[in-house]
Amino acid sequence: MVIRHTDESHWESIPVLNYKEEGNSFRKITRQVLYDGTRELPCQVRYFEVAPGGHSSLERHEHVHVVFIVRGEGDVLVGSEVQRISEKDVVTIPGNTWHQFQADRGSALGFLCLVNVERDRPHMPTAEDLESLRRDPRVASFIKS
Amino acid sequence: MVIRHTDESHWESIPVLNYKEEGNSFRKITRQVLYDGTRELPCQVRYFEVAPGGHSSLERHEHVHVVFIVRGEGDVLVGSEVQRISEKDVVTIPGNTWHQFQADRGSALGFLCLVNVERDRPHMPTAEDLESLRRDPRVASFIKS
Repeated sequence: MVIRHTDESHWESIPVLNYKEEGNSFRKITRQVLYDGTRELPCQVRYFEVAPGGHSSLERHEHVHVVFIVRGEGDVLVGSEVQRISEKDVVTIPGNTWHQFQADRGSALGFLCLVNVERDRPHMPTAEDLESLRRDPRVASFIKS
Repeated sequence: MVIRHTDESHWESIPVLNYKEEGNSFRKITRQVLYDGTRELPCQVRYFEVAPGGHSSLERHEHVHVVFIVRGEGDVLVGSEVQRISEKDVVTIPGNTWHQFQADRGSALGFLCLVNVERDRPHMPTAEDLESLRRDPRVASFIKS
């Protein structure tokens, strides 16, 4: 019933997985599933860790994320806002909202991410979406795709 | 979308609440609701902090808990097992399983606890339950009720 941490970003018996199985919209990021969801509590708790200089995909989807920063610092885009984040901050990503996490402050960025087990697949931005996102200079200078 | 932590165990705009509104089955423990659950993601993320020497209620219920230790160390009873816990450990409490968290190692014990929004109320042990729990000497020496 207890899954012990073995160091700052690993747990006994929890494999370190690829962030996604395919694509090149992300960089230096891994995934560990700490709670896989059950009928009684149909949520997944995943731990993502972005190595310094890495980032998650720029994406959006209908499902909601609740994120808790466990380690390090970085920045996050939520909609059209870029915000600095550090250990113990809580980030809510509403449905259908562009978002991207970046470990752009010299340290790793590790966070828990809570989602429903049943959820839609993420959408990556089309050329048109990117054009629209880049109209905001702060967003334009932040996003990596 | 970002709720910033203001110190090791507080967040901007998040009130510190009583652990429970009534009862005396617990000691030196507070509750903060970091995510209150929505139709899209019907889970609550609560942060509980047990001050040194305090404990949560000894209780059981049908709903499942997923717990992530954020701060300090302590011990937890899950069923008939007492286990030491520290920062970054993950504890799953299955349904209908007696459990109690104790900050019994000289530091505070702070943890996230994930639950469904829709859940049953906890049951405290009856005199008969306590008698049965106390048949195991390790459990008997641990529990506070």
